[in-house]
Amino acid sequence: MAKQKRLKLGALLHGVGGGTSLWRHPDVDAGASVNFELYKSWVRKAEEGKLDLIFIADGLYITEKSIPHFLNRFEPITLLSALAAVSTNIGLVGTLSTSYSEPFTVARQFGSLDVISGGRAGWNVVTSPLEGSALNYGKKEHPEHDKRYRIATEFLEVARGLWDSWEDDAFVRNKETGVFFDRDKMHELNHEGEFFSVKGPLNIARSKQGGPVIFQAGASEVGKNYAAKEADAIFSGAENLEEALRFAQDVKARAAAFGRNPDDVLIFPGIGPIIGRTEEEAERKYQEVAGLVTIENALDYLGRFFEHHDFSQYPLDEPFPELGDLGKNSFQSGTDKIKRDAKEKGLTLRQVALQSATPRGNFIGTAEQVADRIQAWFEAGAADGFMITSAVPRGLEDFVDQVVPILQERGLFRTEYESDTLRGNLGLRVPENRYTMAKAEAVRS
Amino acid sequence: MAKQKRLKLGALLHGVGGGTSLWRHPDVDAGASVNFELYKSWVRKAEEGKLDLIFIADGLYITEKSIPHFLNRFEPITLLSALAAVSTNIGLVGTLSTSYSEPFTVARQFGSLDVISGGRAGWNVVTSPLEGSALNYGKKEHPEHDKRYRIATEFLEVARGLWDSWEDDAFVRNKETGVFFDRDKMHELNHEGEFFSVKGPLNIARSKQGGPVIFQAGASEVGKNYAAKEADAIFSGAENLEEALRFAQDVKARAAAFGRNPDDVLIFPGIGPIIGRTEEEAERKYQEVAGLVTIENALDYLGRFFEHHDFSQYPLDEPFPELGDLGKNSFQSGTDKIKRDAKEKGLTLRQVALQSATPRGNFIGTAEQVADRIQAWFEAGAADGFMITSAVPRGLEDFVDQVVPILQERGLFRTEYESDTLRGNLGLRVPENRYTMAKAEAVRS
Repeated sequence: MAKQKRLKLGALLHGVGGGTSLWRHPDVDAGASVNFELYKSWVRKAEEGKLDLIFIADGLYITEKSIPHFLNRFEPITLLSALAAVSTNIGLVGTLSTSYSEPFTVARQFGSLDVISGGRAGWNVVTSPLEGSALNYGKKEHPEHDKRYRIATEFLEVARGLWDSWEDDAFVRNKETGVFFDRDKMHELNHEGEFFSVKGPLNIARSKQGGPVIFQAGASEVGKNYAAKEADAIFSGAENLEEALRFAQDVKARAAAFGRNPDDVLIFPGIGPIIGRTEEEAERKYQEVAGLVTIENALDYLGRFFEHHDFSQYPLDEPFPELGDLGKNSFQSGTDKIKRDAKEKGLTLRQVALQSATPRGNFIGTAEQVADRIQAWFEAGAADGFMITSAVPRGLEDFVDQVVPILQERGLFRTEYESDTLRGNLGLRVPENRYTMAKAEAVRS
Repeated sequence: MAKQKRLKLGALLHGVGGGTSLWRHPDVDAGASVNFELYKSWVRKAEEGKLDLIFIADGLYITEKSIPHFLNRFEPITLLSALAAVSTNIGLVGTLSTSYSEPFTVARQFGSLDVISGGRAGWNVVTSPLEGSALNYGKKEHPEHDKRYRIATEFLEVARGLWDSWEDDAFVRNKETGVFFDRDKMHELNHEGEFFSVKGPLNIARSKQGGPVIFQAGASEVGKNYAAKEADAIFSGAENLEEALRFAQDVKARAAAFGRNPDDVLIFPGIGPIIGRTEEEAERKYQEVAGLVTIENALDYLGRFFEHHDFSQYPLDEPFPELGDLGKNSFQSGTDKIKRDAKEKGLTLRQVALQSATPRGNFIGTAEQVADRIQAWFEAGAADGFMITSAVPRGLEDFVDQVVPILQERGLFRTEYESDTLRGNLGLRVPENRYTMAKAEAVRS
């Protein structure tokens, strides 16, 4: 019997939540974003559910208008490293910006995390949407959108080059002869590019998965091309199956155009399942959480996507205001969509703000219903996997306890890890070291 | 009865060792520098011995001549974070360079480690001695020695400012009123200096120890002033009690001249105890390890301090060569001392190289003898504590199992942790938040 293709699952761990007000819920620890014990329990829950990975998002700039989770939260590299020590199989994926860091340091830190975790690291390559980030890094201005992607392209090229500094069998460690490493298997990179010049070699060798898994979440034109060309996995957003399918087909077609096998680019839409014993109970849970959001919260939340624009200056119940280019250089794909939707559907500011701050999503219902929808998206080719976010208290716990067993029973999801590396569980191949490969080719020709 | 002043103890965890050849010893894991399980066992051993802290050194540039540990090792931030998750009381101190990083990122990563560990982080502020580091960071040149310290001064000023972004009671998290934080207790830094411009606030609040403990290891004139002015603790090197005492008195006098209480600057000479059941057994252990070092190893080892200078070009048994200014811009205090000693004692190149690569140290003997010497240094005021390095296989284990109990019995060392924070165990006060302090002063005046 041919092995059925299985879906992948990740969990976005996001402290008090990605919205403005979940922290006010009586069942939520309002200090969750800086509670390491809680993160530990989430990772253990996710691993109990045999999830592929946990995911830590990030940002480099806050103002008093930022959502609670952003104000006071763990930094991804430190958090993932700590979580590595208390888990065994689950992938550890985190966001790090190529616009405000150095490739040698980033390659080292992710490389080190990858070895510490025994091959479970993943890097979500972002270019930093928030303009203000520049102010924390002594830059005159935030690089414009397309330039950020040119930087990101070169940055990742350097990081991958550094991860190949040592061929996999470079460290012979022969106590008899005193030879610690094979000089022919140590490689300087000597990169000289538009943005970076890096000599190498890196001072850590590759892990057994051959280097961190590359995630990307770009959804603009430039972002999609970057992801299709460079990423192993894409964290996407989609309001419904049709939109998700369009995105997946689009990105996979781009990947094929870049000469890649489309199966090597895994698409993970983010979803926030809300599970009840009945549909009504699930709906009540949603309403309870949505009801915590005031209109002021919602305006602030919306403002964040538009460079912290102050939306309280407009009338609430008139058509969504004309904003010109505002938002183009931050969350480009998101702000384009908000403007387009508002225009097409004739929405008021209040409607746009509340929709943005209290999204309903497509995954509210009983565990069976949620599993059905996941199966439908997966089988339609709209997703290779899903990134689960906790839209309600105990969102992850409910998903693992109630939905995962149904997916397992249907043969859609693993009951045991296939591997102890992230690439192994995601079904991605270990990238060959460029120098080892070149030598093998030289021998063949 | 007045409480006796007690000494402090740290353990430098250094994989296959800081020399060229310990990895060849039959009892050493030659892959130790990238073996996380081993680091975990060391931390647990150190915590069993109630040591104050473990210490992870670092460097940003390697060549084929680098010592084995440097070629392939964990990056400190990731390693310390992982170790935080598997320990409860011990301090976690690591090296990070101010010459090749951004204060916002460094303040965040150490701040996050500090919260994850519940107030156990320490940062060893270094300026990077290795010239080649510039080549991995796209810099035309390595900043000259004194400029590196000017950068370090401003860098630490920024980091400390960022750690004060949030007053300790800023996060009220009132679910009733919806007030997550007190706006008056969130502070932008708005730093504009010679090297950095950083707006802030930082997106993580202080840990319960009020910010990482600052270590420094500078021994040049500029380095000593920097340490005396800025550091909570100093990792020093000293060949004998007299030298250690001179250093301690010198730095404490400088601290006093900067208006600090000299007791607030703790001096930790690094020592590599070698313990035997008899003096002869300890000596045999030393000889066994020294015997692993070839003269080629020793020349390479020496060369590293002099910008990877090739010493194999000189005759071995003639006086140590004249090197001019070589070494001035890297390990300044170390290379000055090597040159001075060679001249004063009329040493040959072979003697200098072997002394450098196989230092005997002052702590070879029975556990009683080592404890005696530790007590003598401590009581003479030459040390507030010691940084233990593993000069032989199981160096840390032997020290914890055999020397620590003697120190405890003599009342010189704790038998239980006084605190679960690093500052608490080191007897250092929690620094007051600058804004809280300013407000309190305003009220008083």
